[in-house]
Amino acid sequence: MGLVVQKYGGSSVADAESVKRVAKRIVETRQAGNDVVVVVSAMGDTTDDLIDLAKQVSPVPPARELDMLLTAGERISMAVLAMAIANLGHEARSFTGSQAGVITDSEHGKARIIDVTPGRISSALADGAIAIVAGFQGVSQSTKDITTLGRGGSDTTAVALAAALGADVCEIYTDVDGVFSADPRIVPAARRLPVITYEEMLEMAASGAKVLHLRCVEYARRFNLPIHVRSSFSHRTGTWVTADYTGNDPEGNPVEQPIIAGVAHDRSEAKVTVVGVPDKPGQAAAIFSAVAGSGINIDMIVQNVSGAATGRTDISFTAPRTDGAKAVQALEKIQGEIGFESLRYDDQVGKISLVGAGMRSHPGVSAKLFGCLAEAGVNIEMISTSEIRISVVVREDDVNTAVTAAHTAFDLDDPEGGAVVYGGTGR
Amino acid sequence: MGLVVQKYGGSSVADAESVKRVAKRIVETRQAGNDVVVVVSAMGDTTDDLIDLAKQVSPVPPARELDMLLTAGERISMAVLAMAIANLGHEARSFTGSQAGVITDSEHGKARIIDVTPGRISSALADGAIAIVAGFQGVSQSTKDITTLGRGGSDTTAVALAAALGADVCEIYTDVDGVFSADPRIVPAARRLPVITYEEMLEMAASGAKVLHLRCVEYARRFNLPIHVRSSFSHRTGTWVTADYTGNDPEGNPVEQPIIAGVAHDRSEAKVTVVGVPDKPGQAAAIFSAVAGSGINIDMIVQNVSGAATGRTDISFTAPRTDGAKAVQALEKIQGEIGFESLRYDDQVGKISLVGAGMRSHPGVSAKLFGCLAEAGVNIEMISTSEIRISVVVREDDVNTAVTAAHTAFDLDDPEGGAVVYGGTGR
Repeated sequence: MGLVVQKYGGSSVADAESVKRVAKRIVETRQAGNDVVVVVSAMGDTTDDLIDLAKQVSPVPPARELDMLLTAGERISMAVLAMAIANLGHEARSFTGSQAGVITDSEHGKARIIDVTPGRISSALADGAIAIVAGFQGVSQSTKDITTLGRGGSDTTAVALAAALGADVCEIYTDVDGVFSADPRIVPAARRLPVITYEEMLEMAASGAKVLHLRCVEYARRFNLPIHVRSSFSHRTGTWVTADYTGNDPEGNPVEQPIIAGVAHDRSEAKVTVVGVPDKPGQAAAIFSAVAGSGINIDMIVQNVSGAATGRTDISFTAPRTDGAKAVQALEKIQGEIGFESLRYDDQVGKISLVGAGMRSHPGVSAKLFGCLAEAGVNIEMISTSEIRISVVVREDDVNTAVTAAHTAFDLDDPEGGAVVYGGTGR
Repeated sequence: MGLVVQKYGGSSVADAESVKRVAKRIVETRQAGNDVVVVVSAMGDTTDDLIDLAKQVSPVPPARELDMLLTAGERISMAVLAMAIANLGHEARSFTGSQAGVITDSEHGKARIIDVTPGRISSALADGAIAIVAGFQGVSQSTKDITTLGRGGSDTTAVALAAALGADVCEIYTDVDGVFSADPRIVPAARRLPVITYEEMLEMAASGAKVLHLRCVEYARRFNLPIHVRSSFSHRTGTWVTADYTGNDPEGNPVEQPIIAGVAHDRSEAKVTVVGVPDKPGQAAAIFSAVAGSGINIDMIVQNVSGAATGRTDISFTAPRTDGAKAVQALEKIQGEIGFESLRYDDQVGKISLVGAGMRSHPGVSAKLFGCLAEAGVNIEMISTSEIRISVVVREDDVNTAVTAAHTAFDLDDPEGGAVVYGGTGR
């Protein structure tokens, strides 16, 4: 029939029983006449256990060696999965990232894929075998050292291999039924989305939705490769991530493009306010060069209107909480040079984002969002928008209220009710 | 000073604390001015745990995948060891068997090294780094698949690398102080041997002494590479395994060649007796082709004198107990063809062996051995000899008595007493 690449996360292969269940599923796909390539993450908590072990001998383990260590995790899961498949009477061959031709740069811990040369995978498929590939890992083109791809690495491996092999689809198996219109733990009426576009998925992922990682979606968009996000615990259709709403519906039905695809939220950011910045050219540049120079990714930025009487203004920005201390430190260093009055650090904030390509042709989305939040008694502290997204920063305590209000206001609630356990995809 | 290859077994790197202790020891060797290459086994019970995991998904896991799985064990230990060394301020780089250039045939689970091309190890040394290499593993020259070397594999890796790199010595670290004149758990007065020759060590290993494996000693002999067997828990000199007794004594003293180096014992064999074999040409050949055809390694063979009256004889042989059932099965199949009367299977036997190159020039060793065993009340069931070894099969219950009696009779008892915990080297 075709060539299917499947990716199973750590929670799908948490123990021997799960591995056997996944093996059965892979064999079913093979028996349906497909060539099958499987990308697998480390089993359950293996990666965390290995990190703990590393920490016991070294507070700051060298990145090269940490990659060598962590890649043992997928080595174990892929070999065990291949054995489980063999036990069902099908040939399976496991391959490390290096053997599968996943060539990366040499940034240990967050390497980027620069080429995929899956010659050994193609040979295995030609021999009728199922190929099992270690996710999350590759080999550096320049040093020949083993690298890891960082967060979302296994998803990226799967999409990159699927693109290089010309697969018909990349199936990302996780512990939820697909991509939802909101986190069902907050909004029980959240709906599974049958289809979402690459650009919407990118905005959702960047706004805190954890089901797919940015890099993997970017990769799929670049190669126009359909991703099918689905649960390894059921046989239900999940969510197709594709270029647009007209194609790729599994039942072949045209799906109407919604105005809003979903509501994402993010509790991982903090807000930093630089108070009393002298209102003259170049001050913002100086502030954000200092922060960027510390390797911090800034998300939203808001500058208040200058008080005419004082000639001073406040500049606020959000950044990951994990970088909060670093940001404050960087700014304290330039306080004298800039002459701002003080710093305020606030990690009790949350962000909610409305994402939908339909926004482009539907004015009034912002007004409706702000209105429904006001009605719900939620105060907005910062606002930022892209062409297909509106994000607002609110008090962290208001996040659930805000997500629920927006979800209802934009008619996203499932009339039949939702309720599925929602979780991350591991790495 | 020189180039030292050190091998640490699984018990020397059982947990994070042990790894740190070993790291310290390695750094000391480096600080003494040596280039250091370290070969390491999997930590503690890792290998057994991985085998358990494999068994949970497949009763008979494919050998290729089992090798892929098990090699994760050394990957973990070598990376963690490299981290521990880095934490002491020295650069260490870990390498898989494949990266270290350990090229093997494709016999998964018991691959043989056919070439060693340690280019990356030499580069690491040239850069001033300590190289850490995964023991027990290599890569198949023909299939490029990952292989394991089987029992004693890490020792063999160390010796093969030492030979390829032209090392001055290969230090095998274990949990005992060296090679002993007998198992100290049986003979408390057993002495550590300062020196033992390759050929004696080969006979000792083949006769059940577990401290070094046959293959590693064979390899060292072929390249005339000195092995220093010593404890990772002390700084004492251990046992030097070399070509002869004149060189390589660590203090430079000439060591007189003893008549007997040591007494080895082995409780892993069983005795099979084929009763009433018609005494005509070709019967022994038929019996042992059948047994060999089942892949069983036969150790000793004894054929009784034919009874003139019956025209029939008994043929006994020993083989590993683990192959006992297979041997009996193979023989039952040819009972009709051969016309023997019955089979007797006895796994309550033990073997003791006296090993010493001095035997060549000292007649009377056998007579003395048989005499001391008779005095001790031990009945001898089978005898076999090589140029430098005499082995006898006795009741398993008599093994300790026999070893002790022989050890005393040949003046091997340490006047100062011995008493060191004795154990295997893992793999």
